[in-house]
Amino acid sequence: MAKIPDKIQTWQMVQPTTKNKETGEVTPGKLEKKEIAVPELAPDDVLVEVAGCGVCHTDLGYFYDGVPTVSKPPLTLGHEISGTVVAGDEKWIGKEVIIPAVMPCRKCILCKTGRGNRCLDQKMPGNSLGLYGGFSSHIPVPSIDLCEVKDRAGIPLSHFAVIADAATTPYQAAVRADLKPGDNVVVIGITGGVGQYVGQITKALGAKTVIGIARNKEKLERALKFGTDFCINSTDKDARAISTEFRSYCKEKGLPNTGWKIFEVTGTKTGQEIALTLLGFVGKLIVVGFGLAKTEYAIGRLMAFDADIIGTWGCLPEYYPIVLDMALNGKINMEEFVETRPMSTIAETFAEAHKVPPMKRIVLEPDF
Amino acid sequence: MAKIPDKIQTWQMVQPTTKNKETGEVTPGKLEKKEIAVPELAPDDVLVEVAGCGVCHTDLGYFYDGVPTVSKPPLTLGHEISGTVVAGDEKWIGKEVIIPAVMPCRKCILCKTGRGNRCLDQKMPGNSLGLYGGFSSHIPVPSIDLCEVKDRAGIPLSHFAVIADAATTPYQAAVRADLKPGDNVVVIGITGGVGQYVGQITKALGAKTVIGIARNKEKLERALKFGTDFCINSTDKDARAISTEFRSYCKEKGLPNTGWKIFEVTGTKTGQEIALTLLGFVGKLIVVGFGLAKTEYAIGRLMAFDADIIGTWGCLPEYYPIVLDMALNGKINMEEFVETRPMSTIAETFAEAHKVPPMKRIVLEPDF
Repeated sequence: MAKIPDKIQTWQMVQPTTKNKETGEVTPGKLEKKEIAVPELAPDDVLVEVAGCGVCHTDLGYFYDGVPTVSKPPLTLGHEISGTVVAGDEKWIGKEVIIPAVMPCRKCILCKTGRGNRCLDQKMPGNSLGLYGGFSSHIPVPSIDLCEVKDRAGIPLSHFAVIADAATTPYQAAVRADLKPGDNVVVIGITGGVGQYVGQITKALGAKTVIGIARNKEKLERALKFGTDFCINSTDKDARAISTEFRSYCKEKGLPNTGWKIFEVTGTKTGQEIALTLLGFVGKLIVVGFGLAKTEYAIGRLMAFDADIIGTWGCLPEYYPIVLDMALNGKINMEEFVETRPMSTIAETFAEAHKVPPMKRIVLEPDF
Repeated sequence: MAKIPDKIQTWQMVQPTTKNKETGEVTPGKLEKKEIAVPELAPDDVLVEVAGCGVCHTDLGYFYDGVPTVSKPPLTLGHEISGTVVAGDEKWIGKEVIIPAVMPCRKCILCKTGRGNRCLDQKMPGNSLGLYGGFSSHIPVPSIDLCEVKDRAGIPLSHFAVIADAATTPYQAAVRADLKPGDNVVVIGITGGVGQYVGQITKALGAKTVIGIARNKEKLERALKFGTDFCINSTDKDARAISTEFRSYCKEKGLPNTGWKIFEVTGTKTGQEIALTLLGFVGKLIVVGFGLAKTEYAIGRLMAFDADIIGTWGCLPEYYPIVLDMALNGKINMEEFVETRPMSTIAETFAEAHKVPPMKRIVLEPDF
């Protein structure tokens, strides 16, 4: 039985990387090990002893790229968290859980009408949950939306951290896409932490065809082992060349030229231009990746195509148990896509992941 | 009882307006009165004696603006048609009907899966139905998707022509928008033939608020009498100014800033820019108007907003009886939005409507 700690040990982002607008001088961000008080828990809160916290592209955005957190620094980053409940709400004590990356308020009209994933009062650890985040020994969170891991079949609890975001965001995207068995799917950015789960999950949900588009050869080859039927390496190719390769594959396999569901996970202008070029009659483009770049498009084409562009944000906590089951039943693979490291490597790990996207999702395990 | 004619009398577009690309010289289009043979009817076809055919912006596009028809000229334009069946399939003879503007093939995968409105083999009178169109005494069409007008409650049959396109396209748009009672709606281009029905139909389907945006003062005032709650005159205003006016109205009325359904009916870059500016959290932008202009937009915002852009094309024939009922039950008004003229005025009417969009939908009645 885990113990209730006196203090929370944590890796705080004391200061993000900043760039002087006038001189261009970069001041490196700072991560520091700190000890903070265990807060008084509200009746519906629990304290979770962290087993692992995934390093997400979003964390790197906060630390390196000027993306602002809702709670101002110092705060602890990290929102892909699994762990064990050690204090608070009695009925949860001792349970192993995944903490949803975004926790809806459950009180507003969006929450009441099934759109809680986009609740405007939602809390996200490592962003809008005060100073608390996953790169810690413990974290206080509301219990209402915890996802219990009942029988983890010998898989280390820390691995389940990736369910919170990397694997659930794709599930929500598939729901938003109204994905049906027999659907044909394209995933742009299939080699990324989220992208590869878009491929795995759409296939697991019954997609007939999954075509992956990205640049990393090694990761594209891995995708072919996990549900992707065909890959297009987009290195040095423009949208038109990719479209030609896509159409040629469709012709070869007798696939239709209507109704494709295209998931754009990169958030880049290049990725979006490929997506818009591939979008056709009765198609859907699902925008999973975030970026601020503006893209030119004749929106009138959507009318002629009877086609949609669908933005998708986060994942409803009620879908977490479904994705967890998919992982436990082997419908999606976690093991080949997770690497664990001691949490004390956080600074090097951030630097490394910011430089080159890692082959596997890195989950940091507390070693305070 | 209507007679079976020996010949079909018709106003053919012998030649659309053309412009010499080098000299810029414009050769005016030609409409000519012709007599053509009544074709042999296939077992499932009928011959309809035309009561009226609406003049749509699409017809003017074909005649004046270089939009190509699928069947090459000479052909007769016109796709908003009501009339009486006079020959063919026995069980239809004598019935008063509305002819759907687009008639799905009913054989392909799109037709079989509920997307027949975007069937790629669909036939549209005055465009892809050989040389046949609505500006005629009679027209041969398949019977499978005819909409019977059982009791027209004293309203002239010719008026029902507007159901085929002007009133049904908005209904399909509302279906695509997943319009629900209590929804809040913006209609950009609410003064147009289609736009005003988007306002009427969304209100009839239970929209809490309908805000109309357009430039024509007189038509905006009329919109307020037919379901529109508030109008923004967009003359000389940019998207930002319109957005401010919109937000100020929302604040005054205590309306939410999430979940708005925005219908863009103009197909113009200006209209689209207004629409994209108004689109917010959990919102939907429904693209009803067609245009080729490219618009700049940061598609990543759709992800952050959990919002959609939905293109909508035509209307499934199975929805025609629903819209017909709405007209017959007074839930939407036809009378105030229809003007009839003799079909022999076609050339003047086209010229007039191309110059200034008319206050009412003009329906031409055969007077051969």
